[in-house]
Amino acid sequence: MNITESATLAKKASISLANSNSDSKNNALIEISKALLERQEEILKANNEDIERAINENLSDPLLKRLKFDKNKIDDVISGIKSLINLPEPVGKTLAATELDKGLELYKISCPIGVTGVIFESRPDALVQISTLCLKSGNAVLLKGGREAFNTNRVLFNIIKTASEAAGIPTGWIHLLETRDDVNEMLKLDKYIDLLIPRGSNEFVQYIMKNSNIPVMGHADGICHCYVDSEADLDMAVKVVLDSKTQYVSVCNATETLLVNKDIAKEFLPLLKIELDKKNVELVGCPEAQKIIFVNSASEEDWKTEYLDYKLSIKIVKTIQEAIEHINTYSSGHTEAIITKNKESAELFMNLIDSANVFWNCSTRFSDGFRYGFGAEVGISTSKLHARGPVGLDGLLIYKYKLYGNGNIVQDYANKTKTFTHKKI
Amino acid sequence: MNITESATLAKKASISLANSNSDSKNNALIEISKALLERQEEILKANNEDIERAINENLSDPLLKRLKFDKNKIDDVISGIKSLINLPEPVGKTLAATELDKGLELYKISCPIGVTGVIFESRPDALVQISTLCLKSGNAVLLKGGREAFNTNRVLFNIIKTASEAAGIPTGWIHLLETRDDVNEMLKLDKYIDLLIPRGSNEFVQYIMKNSNIPVMGHADGICHCYVDSEADLDMAVKVVLDSKTQYVSVCNATETLLVNKDIAKEFLPLLKIELDKKNVELVGCPEAQKIIFVNSASEEDWKTEYLDYKLSIKIVKTIQEAIEHINTYSSGHTEAIITKNKESAELFMNLIDSANVFWNCSTRFSDGFRYGFGAEVGISTSKLHARGPVGLDGLLIYKYKLYGNGNIVQDYANKTKTFTHKKI
Repeated sequence: MNITESATLAKKASISLANSNSDSKNNALIEISKALLERQEEILKANNEDIERAINENLSDPLLKRLKFDKNKIDDVISGIKSLINLPEPVGKTLAATELDKGLELYKISCPIGVTGVIFESRPDALVQISTLCLKSGNAVLLKGGREAFNTNRVLFNIIKTASEAAGIPTGWIHLLETRDDVNEMLKLDKYIDLLIPRGSNEFVQYIMKNSNIPVMGHADGICHCYVDSEADLDMAVKVVLDSKTQYVSVCNATETLLVNKDIAKEFLPLLKIELDKKNVELVGCPEAQKIIFVNSASEEDWKTEYLDYKLSIKIVKTIQEAIEHINTYSSGHTEAIITKNKESAELFMNLIDSANVFWNCSTRFSDGFRYGFGAEVGISTSKLHARGPVGLDGLLIYKYKLYGNGNIVQDYANKTKTFTHKKI
Repeated sequence: MNITESATLAKKASISLANSNSDSKNNALIEISKALLERQEEILKANNEDIERAINENLSDPLLKRLKFDKNKIDDVISGIKSLINLPEPVGKTLAATELDKGLELYKISCPIGVTGVIFESRPDALVQISTLCLKSGNAVLLKGGREAFNTNRVLFNIIKTASEAAGIPTGWIHLLETRDDVNEMLKLDKYIDLLIPRGSNEFVQYIMKNSNIPVMGHADGICHCYVDSEADLDMAVKVVLDSKTQYVSVCNATETLLVNKDIAKEFLPLLKIELDKKNVELVGCPEAQKIIFVNSASEEDWKTEYLDYKLSIKIVKTIQEAIEHINTYSSGHTEAIITKNKESAELFMNLIDSANVFWNCSTRFSDGFRYGFGAEVGISTSKLHARGPVGLDGLLIYKYKLYGNGNIVQDYANKTKTFTHKKI
């Protein structure tokens, strides 16, 4: 089947899937988790093949770690599905209701977006999370995973498709794309696909946006900042900056730039450096920072760089306003934290920073669908339309307006023989 | 000032505008309505110049009508601003709140999108509506109106800018673009502009989408349908179809295609034709329709055409399913109505039709922000992301996540010395 045929089928399936009831979707999710358990040997075998090939191709350790899909990971995705089953039905909710006139009632009803195309990285658990989120929210989906996880993805896809369709979910609601050519073909199918969710580098997301008319929910770079204010608790600041930078360096919510208020810089930076040195974090800094601690010089490019590594750029600022301005200039709009004892300064920072997640006295690493309590996430959006920050089920929903009348015509209101009541129901 | 400078200023202003309080925004709206009244002679003079030039350029009567901005129109926009003032403050609302752990609280807070670029048609009242909606929702805006309304737009813009900035709204929150080159320059400024709202033809919206990386909220074609079911009240059906087609033909929510169930077609079509003939509506139909009434043959192209004129295409369908399938194939996803006495058929139609507005026993002409009770509207969206159908204030808002902690780090949860509580607050 080529991609256009897959997308046509998905569009067709999406219409009935949008109207599947809660029980049948939850039942299909139960069947999927059963099948994952029953067919786990098959999954582990496929994943071993992927791992072996990856080792032969000299993939880096962090990538190998992401690729690994063992018994624990299977248990994790199954427990993820269970929590998804327990979430309330997201489709068919009345979001607003208005009487336009007597006997003319308007309802705003939540519904799935329709057909989504999701392109994700090498973690095979992403395939399970994304497809089950789509199922729960009533969306058909075309999936494209990382090349490295080819065999694992194929088995997982097969399990999910077989189990869900046997449980009565419309045939053709889920498809697996396997090549980059498939992806390029998908980008043209704005007639059938309503939303693209590319997960990956900023360049990759930009490539998708430039080459498709389909709306994109962007999961892009994270150039995140910590700002240590003049009124910070310095011990807390060390702890939070250390976690923000080093708890897991290769993820989008890790901090890349530290801003430090000049009033506490002399005391704070040496304290922080002791801890960062223990973790072998490479430091670069502005000239003012270089006067306090021994670090290399930061270039303009450093403020714009997502290191995803044990590296941190440091800048001394004179005021909180300067920190806010630096962040609004260089941040990717993902996550920024302020460390201060002053609540007013915290509120100023959180209000004036134009980012999806703004934090007071805690690590930037908290911006994540699981930690936010969304269950799984489809991605983190740094765009400002539709969904922002960690995106769970809500990001896969839109609404339609249903208007119930009894022969009502607009002409009656145009010539003022009738008037609108516009009462909330 | 060139467009990049305008957009840079708008971005800067948008940050403080996002944090302007309700009173200062409402006060600015009051000042704008006062200034519109005080300077009405200036507006009328400018509009007369536009009208004279338009007459010299042989603009069509409907276009001249849209261009006209007289005393009544001024009163209308002022009363629109008054109803906007009375709407509750949309910014800073807590949309959700979760305790992630003791002393670690997450708030989802509504906020403006930031900087919007709106390109609208020849009606000068659109300039007032859009800019005041942006002000109320805390968004900076770059406006480009129809060329025909050049003088009127310039005066209106000047009044709104002067009055709002004198009332304390940040300088540079509003800009007027005057040429097509300006628009093309604006399309490149994804660094400063967060959202484009093009209003106009489908081709125009497609052009904008193809030539910009900025997210687009599409206000595009309306290929709307009425379906007269086998169980329709035929008198009601005549009345509703007539209103849907002829109440105002040049707008996107006017019906373009009529689908008629074969069981009532012989009785219904002659009744309808009498009324449509009185309004000189040109009819084209499928072969089955041609057997019942004397009409020209409809081509495949007709099902895809938005006439915006006194013309209707007619197709006989065997079942409601065939009607649904025809609509899901040819509709632009705007508005579709079913006329039937059978509630179950109505629900089936409204659930399976993938359009923004789905109506039972009433005219397609009702899909409109004013009729829906939204006050003004920025446009009607046929896309399925962010906002769908008539878009009022809500479509100009997004949210940010604020997380309040006390030194919390992710490492404590990674090594399970702490666990998330995820309690609703």
